Parts: sequence; structure tokens; C-alpha cells
Amino acid sequence: MGRVNLLLLRQEELDPEGVVRLTGRRLEHAREVLRVQQGQALRVGVLGGLMGTGEVLSEDREALVLKVSVTLPPPPRAGVSLVLAVPRPKQLKRVIPAVASLGVDRVVLVNAARVEKSYFDSKVLAQEFLDGLIELGLEQACDTVRPTLEIRQRLKPFIEDELSTWAPADALRQVPHPHTATPLRPVPASTHVVLAIGPDGGWVPFEIELFVKHGFQPVSLGPRVLRGEVAVPAVLGAVRAGT
Amino acid sequence: MGRVNLLLLRQEELDPEGVVRLTGRRLEHAREVLRVQQGQALRVGVLGGLMGTGEVLSEDREALVLKVSVTLPPPPRAGVSLVLAVPRPKQLKRVIPAVASLGVDRVVLVNAARVEKSYFDSKVLAQEFLDGLIELGLEQACDTVRPTLEIRQRLKPFIEDELSTWAPADALRQVPHPHTATPLRPVPASTHVVLAIGPDGGWVPFEIELFVKHGFQPVSLGPRVLRGEVAVPAVLGAVRAGT
Repeated sequence: MGRVNLLLLRQEELDPEGVVRLTGRRLEHAREVLRVQQGQALRVGVLGGLMGTGEVLSEDREALVLKVSVTLPPPPRAGVSLVLAVPRPKQLKRVIPAVASLGVDRVVLVNAARVEKSYFDSKVLAQEFLDGLIELGLEQACDTVRPTLEIRQRLKPFIEDELSTWAPADALRQVPHPHTATPLRPVPASTHVVLAIGPDGGWVPFEIELFVKHGFQPVSLGPRVLRGEVAVPAVLGAVRAGT
Repeated sequence: MGRVNLLLLRQEELDPEGVVRLTGRRLEHAREVLRVQQGQALRVGVLGGLMGTGEVLSEDREALVLKVSVTLPPPPRAGVSLVLAVPRPKQLKRVIPAVASLGVDRVVLVNAARVEKSYFDSKVLAQEFLDGLIELGLEQACDTVRPTLEIRQRLKPFIEDELSTWAPADALRQVPHPHTATPLRPVPASTHVVLAIGPDGGWVPFEIELFVKHGFQPVSLGPRVLRGEVAVPAVLGAVRAGT
């Protein structure tokens, strides 16, 4: 784990005076990585809420006690929803924190022809594990708002029946796909974008047809084959360039 | 290691008839991951040269023998040079393959105030190890051309004395930096871009001043703090969006 840029707290951990007592992973991180000292102010955020500072009232091996004051809003969302083919478990551990740190609004992990069925049995798809990966990304990026995250084992019913209510109805739908002449271009921040990012090896023709039938425009990322953990930030960077 | 999309060969491995005999890592990968069979055609590329196919003449536990035919040029370069503060060794292992897969032309790993001195003693900065990381990125992206890679323990002399000959003289110089009003915007593909990407925690004021004094424009990536392995693809995606 890298250095945490924001200590994430839960609202229910705060007492009425805004004092919180941390143990476990956050205590260890504060002592061993951040090397906190009494009186120091740490950057903190309340999951789903405001950000601010936590003054260290005391710290020892048992607990880190902070007096929290949160008044700042978290950064704005990216205005992006991701339909993401389930990556290999090892990649998923990098992609999900990246997705969270980039401020993606919502992500659905879907099956695809080139996704190995065994991935759905992987422990990294357990909700608790995914929640942990999301929080890593938020702590990195200094954000408090999780992307919503769902898992769908069947792509077609999701696209046909759920997509129109899952993401804003007026969103621009784009599917990165090689052999497409139209390059991925920046989209004004006022327009929400739904991006369908395929697995290693890409979407198969049947899947591309399904996306196109449901209003997705195929766009090109160029001739290079990018791994999910590289493709996701590159696509987000391109779509939101200049905003 | 993920699935290799291109088997990288060296020119000197090919005999005059274009036959190559592979052992070691590439043999293992071909047998265990790609599950190659006699007669099958694999995507291959000659390091620094052309790409094409390798027909499997034979494969067994000892060697994979290919008849190689390469006629296709590698994908165009990104037209980007990176001045990259040395990341933590664990991050470097992810950033360098990403840099290579994105087609970056050249990268210099530099020291910075917020880079821990111990990183320069890490074995991941050994040339052989870095070469391996670069080749991983090329095999992923289907490219044959390495970015040039250098290491400089002192930032200031590099910027003052070497930068002007290291990258094209007419390149646009940009330094991502928070608290900057100008967002990073797409730059036409015909303009080479030099990007200076800081360490975790960013460049310090002295470093930003040094860059600005040497023609770098500070640009914003937005309010989120992105880790190197996320920032690099996001920045490349933004700079080359629409090209």
C-alpha cells in the first residue's frame, strides 16, 4: 500500500464532538507511514461526505485519537459511467483503485466472451474486497465518494434492460474498439459519458453489435493494445481532457 | 505476467531464412499461456524493427521453432517525452511497462525533492531490469520500438544542460501541477510534447520554478491526486485525445 493522502472515516465513528478513535490498519498507517505526532493535523474525509482535517489528540500503540473538522466538499465527479469487462483478478486489484481515484460515477463489471468464467468465482469479486479496493483509490485521490459498483454475469440483459436506468438517459455512449476510424475525443464536462471497456483481446463482434444497437459509438484509442489498468486512465484522460 | 500480444524477437536470433529457435521465458509462455500448436501463426515483432507472423514449425519442451515473416511497420510513436520523478520501486514496475505500451518516445527518470534517495539504490533501476519492464510493455501493446530510457540523479543540471538536446527543440513543454487554472488540453499530433510528471506529493515550488524558467507551462489534471501509474496514462490520453 502506498502513502494515504486522505484518512477515510465513517460518519458513525465520530462522536458528537467530532472525536474519532482509530485502531487497526489506519492506526498502523498513521504511525508507521505518516509518522504522526500529537498536535499534527491530518487530512481526513468522511465516507460519502465532507473533507477536512483531523487534529491528533493522542496516539499510541492502542489508538489514534483525532478531533475532526470537515467543511470542504469532495472533488466533483468525473461524469463517467463504466461498463467494464471483468479483468483478470490480478488486474482488477489495480483497475478498481484507479477507477475510484479517477472519480468514476458508477461501474458495472460484466461478463464478456473473452472473460474467463473462473473470474466470477475469484475472491476479489467479493463485495467486501471490492469495497477495500475502492477505499484505497479514494484515499489516494483525496475523495470521499465511492463509485457505485455492480456485477452482472450476463452482458446482454444488462444492456437491454438495465442500462437505460443505470446511467443518465441523455449520456453519450461510447465503446473503444480497434479498427474504428473515429478517435476518442474530449467530451464537454456537462455531458455524461458511458464507456464500455472490453477485456484483454477486446469485445467480440457480437458484443460490438449489441453495443452499437444500443446507441454506443465505436471509438478508437489508436493502434496500441492497452491493458485494462492503462486503458481506463487513458480513456478517462482523453474523454475529460481540457475540463 | 499477462498474455503477450506480440512475441518479441531480436534480429540476431533470426537465421538467414528467418527461422528462430526460442527457449526460456518465451517458450514457456508460448506453450503454457498461448498453447501454441504446429502450423499456428503467432504475432511476432523484431525489437526495433518490423512486425508480422511466426509460423510454428515445431514446439516441444526444448524449443519453439518459428519461421518468421515481418513486413508491417510498428505503430507510430506517441510524440511524447517524459521527465519522470523516480517512483517507488513497486510503482516503477507498473509505470515503465505502461510508458512503453503507450509509445512514449523517451523517458528520463530524475531525482526530485520528494523522491526518497534510497530509490536510486533499488535493483529495479538496474538497466537489465528496466529493459525487461519495457519489453513487457511492448509485448502487451504490439510494438517493437523501445522508449529510450535514462536516469539522472540531479534534476537541475539535466533541465539546464541536457533537456534542449534530449527532446525536440520545438516541443511543447508542460508540467502537471495542482493549483493551476489551465487544464491539460489535447495537443495536435504534429507537436511533440515534453511532460514533467512529479513524484507522490508533487514537485516542490523550487522545482516548478525551475521548469517554468525553462519554458514549461503548468497545467492542471484536476483536483484529484493520481498515483504515477494512473497519472501517466491519464496525461498521455489527455494530450493525445482525438489524434
